[in-house]
Amino acid sequence: MQCSDPVEQVLLKPGMTVGELVSALGRAGAYNGGALARAADIYEGMLRDRQAVRFLGLAGAMVPAGMGRIVSDLIDGGHVDVLVSTGANLTHDIIESLGCRHYHGTAVCSDVALRDEEINRIYDVFLPNDAFIKFEEFMQEVFSELPPSAPLTIAGLLAVIGSKLDSGILASATRGNIPVYCPAIADSMIGLQFWLFSQTNRVTVDAFRDMQALLSTCFDAKRAGALLIGGGVPKNFILQSMLMTPRGFDYAVQLTGDRPDLGGLSGATLDEARSWGKITGDARAVTVYGDATITFPLLVAAVLERLGR
Amino acid sequence: MQCSDPVEQVLLKPGMTVGELVSALGRAGAYNGGALARAADIYEGMLRDRQAVRFLGLAGAMVPAGMGRIVSDLIDGGHVDVLVSTGANLTHDIIESLGCRHYHGTAVCSDVALRDEEINRIYDVFLPNDAFIKFEEFMQEVFSELPPSAPLTIAGLLAVIGSKLDSGILASATRGNIPVYCPAIADSMIGLQFWLFSQTNRVTVDAFRDMQALLSTCFDAKRAGALLIGGGVPKNFILQSMLMTPRGFDYAVQLTGDRPDLGGLSGATLDEARSWGKITGDARAVTVYGDATITFPLLVAAVLERLGR
Amino acid sequence: MQCSDPVEQVLLKPGMTVGELVSALGRAGAYNGGALARAADIYEGMLRDRQAVRFLGLAGAMVPAGMGRIVSDLIDGGHVDVLVSTGANLTHDIIESLGCRHYHGTAVCSDVALRDEEINRIYDVFLPNDAFIKFEEFMQEVFSELPPSAPLTIAGLLAVIGSKLDSGILASATRGNIPVYCPAIADSMIGLQFWLFSQTNRVTVDAFRDMQALLSTCFDAKRAGALLIGGGVPKNFILQSMLMTPRGFDYAVQLTGDRPDLGGLSGATLDEARSWGKITGDARAVTVYGDATITFPLLVAAVLERLGR
Amino acid sequence: MQCSDPVEQVLLKPGMTVGELVSALGRAGAYNGGALARAADIYEGMLRDRQAVRFLGLAGAMVPAGMGRIVSDLIDGGHVDVLVSTGANLTHDIIESLGCRHYHGTAVCSDVALRDEEINRIYDVFLPNDAFIKFEEFMQEVFSELPPSAPLTIAGLLAVIGSKLDSGILASATRGNIPVYCPAIADSMIGLQFWLFSQTNRVTVDAFRDMQALLSTCFDAKRAGALLIGGGVPKNFILQSMLMTPRGFDYAVQLTGDRPDLGGLSGATLDEARSWGKITGDARAVTVYGDATITFPLLVAAVLERLGR
Repeated sequence: MQCSDPVEQVLLKPGMTVGELVSALGRAGAYNGGALARAADIYEGMLRDRQAVRFLGLAGAMVPAGMGRIVSDLIDGGHVDVLVSTGANLTHDIIESLGCRHYHGTAVCSDVALRDEEINRIYDVFLPNDAFIKFEEFMQEVFSELPPSAPLTIAGLLAVIGSKLDSGILASATRGNIPVYCPAIADSMIGLQFWLFSQTNRVTVDAFRDMQALLSTCFDAKRAGALLIGGGVPKNFILQSMLMTPRGFDYAVQLTGDRPDLGGLSGATLDEARSWGKITGDARAVTVYGDATITFPLLVAAVLERLGR
Repeated sequence: MQCSDPVEQVLLKPGMTVGELVSALGRAGAYNGGALARAADIYEGMLRDRQAVRFLGLAGAMVPAGMGRIVSDLIDGGHVDVLVSTGANLTHDIIESLGCRHYHGTAVCSDVALRDEEINRIYDVFLPNDAFIKFEEFMQEVFSELPPSAPLTIAGLLAVIGSKLDSGILASATRGNIPVYCPAIADSMIGLQFWLFSQTNRVTVDAFRDMQALLSTCFDAKRAGALLIGGGVPKNFILQSMLMTPRGFDYAVQLTGDRPDLGGLSGATLDEARSWGKITGDARAVTVYGDATITFPLLVAAVLERLGR
Repeated sequence: MQCSDPVEQVLLKPGMTVGELVSALGRAGAYNGGALARAADIYEGMLRDRQAVRFLGLAGAMVPAGMGRIVSDLIDGGHVDVLVSTGANLTHDIIESLGCRHYHGTAVCSDVALRDEEINRIYDVFLPNDAFIKFEEFMQEVFSELPPSAPLTIAGLLAVIGSKLDSGILASATRGNIPVYCPAIADSMIGLQFWLFSQTNRVTVDAFRDMQALLSTCFDAKRAGALLIGGGVPKNFILQSMLMTPRGFDYAVQLTGDRPDLGGLSGATLDEARSWGKITGDARAVTVYGDATITFPLLVAAVLERLGR
Repeated sequence: MQCSDPVEQVLLKPGMTVGELVSALGRAGAYNGGALARAADIYEGMLRDRQAVRFLGLAGAMVPAGMGRIVSDLIDGGHVDVLVSTGANLTHDIIESLGCRHYHGTAVCSDVALRDEEINRIYDVFLPNDAFIKFEEFMQEVFSELPPSAPLTIAGLLAVIGSKLDSGILASATRGNIPVYCPAIADSMIGLQFWLFSQTNRVTVDAFRDMQALLSTCFDAKRAGALLIGGGVPKNFILQSMLMTPRGFDYAVQLTGDRPDLGGLSGATLDEARSWGKITGDARAVTVYGDATITFPLLVAAVLERLGR
């Protein structure tokens, strides 16, 4: 153990850039502020590494919170090679792409009254039911154009959806030819819409077939890195994808509000992932505990500032 | 607002039963201890209601922590009508059913050393790699017997697996003819095994088709109740299943370590679910915050004691 | 690393005792359920050790939640040698001892309306203002009887208060001649009452002088153990008390809802305390993360059951 | 309920200032990112209000994490009228003022080995024992110069200490004539040093007498605002200080990693404080959940940027 690198007290300057703040947090270096600064170093290294396949995992309700644009801008900027998302984030992305909006609300209210007013609540964000009517029209139209014979992959279905949208995560991914994986797609409004459609139609979407393309990407990767927003299916699906290959992830950054002591994967440390071989023994990896509506924009703004230099 | 029901200071008696302790927590009535007691009241009501369809959602890493037996015993006891699980819990259930064991380990160790010794870590539980070799043999054999033509549902695949096992969650469910839904099945070792199999074979498992049977159950339900262990896909999939029906859940108990202020579904309050109509306006619902390795056995032991009277 | 001690799946039996449940959690051994079982082993060992001084730290709002009786019963049972508490817990203990009650309330309500109705809220517990009127009368009378000359210690003041009460923590402590330390006593309604008194009177209570008796106890201790309910001042004050002696705590159990990654003492692991020498290198120590309104009664009921055998 | 103010997706720009980022989080407006932006609005309003007494509460281990300079700069900038701190933060402030440093360490290490190397750990910060030797010399000298007769207040003692230091929180406070309250001062290394001193000397520090000056400040305040870093004694002591006055706080911002459902004061919502009258019914108040090593510098940098305009 050594005591060689002193904590520098943070000096704030009015008008300082986000990158300057994150660098100051790095010189302080403690707790989650320090972890965030290390995350910026790792994410910068991962984005600069031309030989690394860059995964982005997107859990939580990030799009309703206004974090979707950061994801689509990362895709447009060429910083994402593979996206793995929950169905919910994609549902809300489609809703925003169709011109519907989420609204500033409050977490302290009567949910029964909200129900009467046909407003759905996501913590302190409100979403009127109207949005789901537009969503239904859109989804039913998309489903109706699908070929009834050969089974689709989930990523294939999402690419079709993305091709019909002008903006947002799915639109950017389709435009950039970036695969979007969503293993639990049935667990979302997309799933419910599919059920509606299947009352009178038949289309088959294969639950497993995306593994082929994904594993192929993993086998071909010289190096691999992952930015994990939240845990859940995206985190596990990304980390397990390298399990079958001879190597693991070389870079990993996790932004999560979960905790390790509950035993769940969402809060599991990235060190734990080393025991499984999902992450290499000498991978650069860090977890930042906190709300991703703070840590995700901080991290990305700081790294984009560095890349812009 | 009224002050009519006083907090009774908890009186502990050596040798008291779990049910007596939970009742004492109910008379105290505060914070998560009080919530746990209310959860027992609600879960007891839900299990006594012959007209209610009882859902069980299983997220987290419950089987490696020794909580799987509680689930299979609940199924055997006729207390579960629909099970929704993560792929991970089913993977570890299969592993235990095949005679492999999880082991007491520690969270404070070198994961690189564990990797060298071929031990996988789940917080403070160790699982030797051997288990996955047995798991692979078993899964490849199961897959090889599947019909190559018509697409399977995920629940159908899980029922096939369960039929080949003697004990555990899947075995109990298959024996009891209880459907097990696992929308994100690709996001688990089962998914990786399927990828292996698909290198030389072709079977189609439909990502969406389980919605049919599930929604049909929901439409037929006079009343519905849900016990949600953790959040993730199982929680959302269960709660959204009632969305298409004219009614919502009448009973809901959530045991979670997540928090609402992060906006994610896993930590969302059950009140929030009322705004969506997933839970009825007058549903009996409570969330108990804490580690389910404590709250789940406490809750079930207390309710079984009451039912046994 | 070894894999020798398998996780036993928890088998619940209707009517099982709390001790049986905790033992089953111990055989499962994982996450916080396993930690709770280890805590029971350690706390049992600590209570059986006739040569160990047993400290109890009491933070959080435990008395309003009905956990005060557990503390006073532990004192009456001879299981506590030194109590360190927040001022708030002692304030609410006095209030209950004076015959006032806390009430079952709700966390989802209008606090402005509560204010109008003169009800104070502690999460989901309500306390009418009346209680503080009785409290004020009592405290002013106690203060008026104090000797104006020589400075009192805080523990001395609390013993005077306890001598005037029939039941509760302070009453039990005074009866049992157990010192109650409360370094932050000014930070409580007791402090505000003292301010009222000091408008027209003068009494001096020494902020530091309790250290003498406490440190003397520590120097005399052959061995020492601590049960820490929550963090805050009680945890730190107890742990630092052994710092000046040649040895540290031999037994330590912490029940907390805080987390280590925030850097605060309340969530700090007990391992961290080893680096400071507050806990011996080979001390038996464990932290159980969760709400103490669940873990504290579980732990104590299980240990009392064992001691009763 | 209304849906009028849409969530704006966050647009990040390389080189954007911290203030611009926080404003973008405010337009997104959701979860803790939105709360942080509201906190900036409230804190800006509080600092611009010339008639408001501005309290700062400092819990957690902020100085070892490099956050002390932000506090002393706020004091130097005239933005703090009353500081309430834990003893630990003041201890580490004195240590840094004496020229000793905290060091970047790691949370994953052997604490027994650290003990052997005489390094104390605070999560991932290391502090060599040398620092405490210098601290002891300094404190014993300070104590030796205190007048033995009349009892001191705690704030008075801290002002004496501050007068002997050139930099840091206590130095800035003394220079600026800002009172520093620390009700639990005995619960810190300062307390242990006092015990050492009292082995051969006698000085009396009054536990309660600071209430006089503090309450006087509260009675004189036209308006009052509080920035609360963490919970603990500083939060409660600040909030309770307005209880005796006819009014409560008008502005309140809390940055905490605790949660309300555990019932403790540290995690209690500021709404709860309205029921007690600690905060006025129409006070502007917000809690930001997260690690203060991220939220505190973000908040202050954004507000200083606005004030500088």
